[in-house]
Amino acid sequence: MSFFYHRTIYLSDTDAAGVIYFANALKICHEAYEAWLTEIGVSLPQMLAEKTMAIPIVHADINLLRPIFCGDQLQINLEVKLIQDNEFLIYYQIFKRESLNKPLAIAKTKHVCINPQTHNRIPLPELIILKAGNLKPEKGSD
Amino acid sequence: MSFFYHRTIYLSDTDAAGVIYFANALKICHEAYEAWLTEIGVSLPQMLAEKTMAIPIVHADINLLRPIFCGDQLQINLEVKLIQDNEFLIYYQIFKRESLNKPLAIAKTKHVCINPQTHNRIPLPELIILKAGNLKPEKGSD
Amino acid sequence: MSFFYHRTIYLSDTDAAGVIYFANALKICHEAYEAWLTEIGVSLPQMLAEKTMAIPIVHADINLLRPIFCGDQLQINLEVKLIQDNEFLIYYQIFKRESLNKPLAIAKTKHVCINPQTHNRIPLPELIILKAGNLKPEKGSD
Amino acid sequence: MSFFYHRTIYLSDTDAAGVIYFANALKICHEAYEAWLTEIGVSLPQMLAEKTMAIPIVHADINLLRPIFCGDQLQINLEVKLIQDNEFLIYYQIFKRESLNKPLAIAKTKHVCINPQTHNRIPLPELIILKAGNLKPEKGSD
Repeated sequence: MSFFYHRTIYLSDTDAAGVIYFANALKICHEAYEAWLTEIGVSLPQMLAEKTMAIPIVHADINLLRPIFCGDQLQINLEVKLIQDNEFLIYYQIFKRESLNKPLAIAKTKHVCINPQTHNRIPLPELIILKAGNLKPEKGSD
Repeated sequence: MSFFYHRTIYLSDTDAAGVIYFANALKICHEAYEAWLTEIGVSLPQMLAEKTMAIPIVHADINLLRPIFCGDQLQINLEVKLIQDNEFLIYYQIFKRESLNKPLAIAKTKHVCINPQTHNRIPLPELIILKAGNLKPEKGSD
Repeated sequence: MSFFYHRTIYLSDTDAAGVIYFANALKICHEAYEAWLTEIGVSLPQMLAEKTMAIPIVHADINLLRPIFCGDQLQINLEVKLIQDNEFLIYYQIFKRESLNKPLAIAKTKHVCINPQTHNRIPLPELIILKAGNLKPEKGSD
Repeated sequence: MSFFYHRTIYLSDTDAAGVIYFANALKICHEAYEAWLTEIGVSLPQMLAEKTMAIPIVHADINLLRPIFCGDQLQINLEVKLIQDNEFLIYYQIFKRESLNKPLAIAKTKHVCINPQTHNRIPLPELIILKAGNLKPEKGSD
């Protein structure tokens, strides 16, 4: 499973150091994840309204390799990898659209599926299980 | 009714133009309002959990008079004014703490109290009605 | 002069009340303004890098008419109106793309052009002056 | 070296899932870092104005262990650890102030000191070198 998302950097993404504020790079990764959910037919708005399922992030990390500026036209590539039926990882690579071989940043988020009332784990939506790739057997879960 | 709130400007409040991002000045006004709610004993967290009452903002405006920089130590002064039992205005003045006579920005928000299920107006919490000042009779509601 | 901008609402735009955080609606208006600058050939990134010109917002206001939810597909319509050669207004209407007759919110921002070193007013870039419409003579400046 | 920072969670920190938006937890960690800089006498505003030194974040990670809600009164504990004279790590633990034994989240950021014009590494401000603790010799750099 592979997916990409296009995003321009706006003034609100930056800070007074003149580049993207570091945590906003993760925010843009999450936008890419939301675009992927829409693409595969999973409705986050419905999940938010019904409140019988939530998929919180339990881990996030990012390596910021090159500065990202206001006006940059980015492409974010996603790889979604199932760990088990109630958790998955997403790997992100952030590129300038004009230079897709040198990532500006790479990131990862780990999501678990829960009942938001009880906080017990429950299985992910079928569509996520179907569309996510599998972690290679030799690879650890985080 | 008058109340003040202290707030330092952080890097995340600024943008690549080197000053506060304009919409973040309104965000800081809202923090001051939340601090006031806590001060008078109204629990926003409880309101968010129970979902039988919401007090959305229907209007906001701001005049940005002087630049606000990262590291600035601000004081936000609030005046809360009841319009009727289901709506009120808040007037904000944003100062540097070391210079409380020259505002850096002035803002206003208008809030209405609704049932979030039906979107019908309902009366505000008693404590807000009690603690808010009254608009002067000759003054229009917005 | 008229321009529109498409924008999906992401989780990060919302708050625990379940709808868009009010100040983020103004942030999205500013994104639309940045998209317009790009469209007419004015480079905000270059302006930020050269630091000989800045166009800060001195006033903003918004009326939030209907709730905006995560996942909403919005269209923001802009009208840019020159006041004089160093200031202009932008009027925004925010719609759901599927219902372009009933705005969800209307907003306005006022921008002035300055030398960021001296804070003196200087003329706007020619392209903004050319592309902005004129305020009707009978209309006040704000 | 150890330092703590107090912070209330505001509505703007949350999202429509009813808890803190994950990337905002890292934003709050950065606020704690800025408060520490102020505490030890390093002026970030001066650094931003002079533009001869910048200390960008090159890595960040966070584990979100328990939900964080609007209104929560948090304490963020920092440990700053020098790696070499131009880079350091910060370890963060986020607690509810009423329960300082069970962290809600733990995070880490890695910072390098550069000349923002050339992007070459330069030594950190003396005060950071003095006040940061040393990484234990047996511990890896990331």
